Amino acid sequence: MTERLIVVGGDAAGMTAASQARKRRGPDDLEILAFERGDYTSFSACGIPFFVGGLVEELDELIVRTPDEFTQKQDIEVRIQHEVVGIDTDKRTVTVTDLATERDYEESFDQLMIATGAEPVRPALENVTAEGIFGVQVLGDGVAIRKMIEDESPARAVVVGAGYIGIEMAEAFQSLGLEVTVIERSAEPMSTLDPDMGRLVGEAMRGFGITLHTDESVSGFVTEDGHVSAVVIEEHEIPADIVILGLGAEPNAQVARDAGIPIGPSGGIKVDRRMRTEIEGVWAAGDCAEKFHLVSRRPVAIPLGTHANKEGRTAGINIGGGYETFPGVLGTAATKVCSLEVAHTGLMEADAAEAGFEFLTATTVSTTRAGYFPGASEMTTKMIVERVSGRLLGAQIIGEEGAAKRIDVIATALWNEMSVEDMLSMDLSYAPPFAPVWDPVLITARKAWQKVEEDQVEGR
Amino acid sequence: MTERLIVVGGDAAGMTAASQARKRRGPDDLEILAFERGDYTSFSACGIPFFVGGLVEELDELIVRTPDEFTQKQDIEVRIQHEVVGIDTDKRTVTVTDLATERDYEESFDQLMIATGAEPVRPALENVTAEGIFGVQVLGDGVAIRKMIEDESPARAVVVGAGYIGIEMAEAFQSLGLEVTVIERSAEPMSTLDPDMGRLVGEAMRGFGITLHTDESVSGFVTEDGHVSAVVIEEHEIPADIVILGLGAEPNAQVARDAGIPIGPSGGIKVDRRMRTEIEGVWAAGDCAEKFHLVSRRPVAIPLGTHANKEGRTAGINIGGGYETFPGVLGTAATKVCSLEVAHTGLMEADAAEAGFEFLTATTVSTTRAGYFPGASEMTTKMIVERVSGRLLGAQIIGEEGAAKRIDVIATALWNEMSVEDMLSMDLSYAPPFAPVWDPVLITARKAWQKVEEDQVEGR
Repeated sequence: MTERLIVVGGDAAGMTAASQARKRRGPDDLEILAFERGDYTSFSACGIPFFVGGLVEELDELIVRTPDEFTQKQDIEVRIQHEVVGIDTDKRTVTVTDLATERDYEESFDQLMIATGAEPVRPALENVTAEGIFGVQVLGDGVAIRKMIEDESPARAVVVGAGYIGIEMAEAFQSLGLEVTVIERSAEPMSTLDPDMGRLVGEAMRGFGITLHTDESVSGFVTEDGHVSAVVIEEHEIPADIVILGLGAEPNAQVARDAGIPIGPSGGIKVDRRMRTEIEGVWAAGDCAEKFHLVSRRPVAIPLGTHANKEGRTAGINIGGGYETFPGVLGTAATKVCSLEVAHTGLMEADAAEAGFEFLTATTVSTTRAGYFPGASEMTTKMIVERVSGRLLGAQIIGEEGAAKRIDVIATALWNEMSVEDMLSMDLSYAPPFAPVWDPVLITARKAWQKVEEDQVEGR
Repeated sequence: MTERLIVVGGDAAGMTAASQARKRRGPDDLEILAFERGDYTSFSACGIPFFVGGLVEELDELIVRTPDEFTQKQDIEVRIQHEVVGIDTDKRTVTVTDLATERDYEESFDQLMIATGAEPVRPALENVTAEGIFGVQVLGDGVAIRKMIEDESPARAVVVGAGYIGIEMAEAFQSLGLEVTVIERSAEPMSTLDPDMGRLVGEAMRGFGITLHTDESVSGFVTEDGHVSAVVIEEHEIPADIVILGLGAEPNAQVARDAGIPIGPSGGIKVDRRMRTEIEGVWAAGDCAEKFHLVSRRPVAIPLGTHANKEGRTAGINIGGGYETFPGVLGTAATKVCSLEVAHTGLMEADAAEAGFEFLTATTVSTTRAGYFPGASEMTTKMIVERVSGRLLGAQIIGEEGAAKRIDVIATALWNEMSVEDMLSMDLSYAPPFAPVWDPVLITARKAWQKVEEDQVEGR
């Protein structure tokens, strides 16, 4: 008897799951039907800022596989502009709205894959829905932003929120010649970094000619003829022709919550290591699903494409009858603003304190290449390590070209629960064009271990 | 009572040990006297090709600390142009030749640190000592090569041996506008890579305009007035104004061997995890010392500056009264030739077979950045994994900018004895300027694990 898999959401997690399930079960065994409320499937949302900035010229380059390709190559039916608005886990049906006709209909499922992604935070501010104010979540956002730039040649851009999306969009506008202002409510940009590291990002942003306001909250927007004309902070207004909301994103779990599918404390759908929800035959993966943090051992909601792909793969293998688990996340991520690279993994200081760790930190300034080699540039590396044991808890890197990807070495050490003492001897590569003879990772581990030792002496 | 430490060899291992010992024991407790037969201390031998090519302009840039600085800042006496030619472990003395006066004298020691480095392989060929033929081992070699280029403007360079030094010197000569020929006796360049990966390096070298002869052995050199004029391969001669011998290097352990200090099967001085030789109070570190390979579990001699620094640090901490161990090596290394980056870690296929592993290999071609991102370039990653368990045994990377340093992620996984199955879920960073959403390391681990699974199904 043919089973039917319904996939809710046509991006990374959902379509990876569909593909993996299809690999293991042919169309006679498993019918696959996917619903996507937008216009595109399997796209790189992380590429949107680069599409807006023009580094990526064609929208097609950001699309891994179109709905037609899914149908023709994998026998996976995709209905775009269709939104799943209800799930009945008893009747095993979903209610779907055809967004073109605004008509609802039902489809039945045996297996249900929920991959509804994340929803950008959109504060309830005056005029927040005005024209010229954009979130950056799906390809359509990128298309709309680029169209507005081409049609209206805005001169002044204001980015609200200096997180990953915010700083990447700031760079994009900057490269297009717009005057860019970024407004951040915290004391420093990048809430995924400790303030001392975030400050370095802020200094660099200002150096690149971006106006950065920190410790400032947006209270509303001024409009003219329905179009945004200024952003209001406290008592004054910052003129704006285009505004980006980069205030982060939360799990889009409403349809699951309404269906009684258990939601975790992070706001994401509760899943186990196989990506099963607590309802038999109902799976979730990607930004809508809760993740297990491997260092804090706590549930978290961290929207990242890397997790979405891996979780989707895990779900798909299991739906396909295989056995696969996804152990959890470290939250490793990287970004850049102009020539500055930024990366982090694991816990920040605040996370570590909240998770109950006593910790020490070590920060070093080193170079990406041998100090004497052309192109050697400064990089700052910070590690957070547990007291006494020296166990690595997290790290942050800021620097020029070649800095960010070193976070992967630290993430791999973290994955293996290494102490910085163990890391000291690690056999990393060296050649003058690539690193100093003591790689910045090792230099920082060495300094961290020294601090652990000193702390133990003092603590006696 | 003041002890006396004598250090034999003034580069990375010896002087790092001296510095670490000094940190822990003041001059009243430990007198430190170092002998260096060359003119320089603590220099970056790995920087020599870049000094020759002119990327590094001043010799001083390659010197971390001069003899005077050691004396003034650390109370460490250094005698350059002094060679230790004998060790008496019973009398606790060394015999030293002052190379300027050719007079010998003795000095007594309580602790002895042997850091005599490696000796370049110099085959017993006709006219191998002719003018214009150089090894590349110490800074003096680099100075001599650069002087000859400036004084004599050679037009044709021949490099014998396509290993790390060989290809880096080929690039240096190429960048200076010389006609460059590289001669390698194996079928492909880079004996630290499997032949299939070495072939890619060879293709790239030829693409860069370097003439590469493989499967060819040099039988001698033709000279004119004592200066090399051609390199002889089989029946024909390749005209040469300057020749580099890049045939690898062996532990320089003769003075230790003569003193009865035990030498291991690799030809290096036998040491334990604390860098102790089998003679009380006699230590060895760096290229002259045998290393324990963490994957093959066998003794090896691998000359690398990274190991020398770490081993020297370990020895120095122990000499200083601390406790430190050095667990062993993976042989991780990286290099580049023109725009091609090359890196490896752990075992090659031949090593794995010799160590008794049954293994599978997986090779992928991916990109350094998201495929659509400007500057994305191809990188080839190969992993060698144990059958059944999927344990990672080694890896090799070849690619353009951003490729080589990814070997450190794999080296960290190897350090932790990970299987490629465990590696699949690793939380590595992603952003379009830095990587595809599945990093090449993960793509290759996934393919390797797939092969392990298929092999198990077939093997039933």
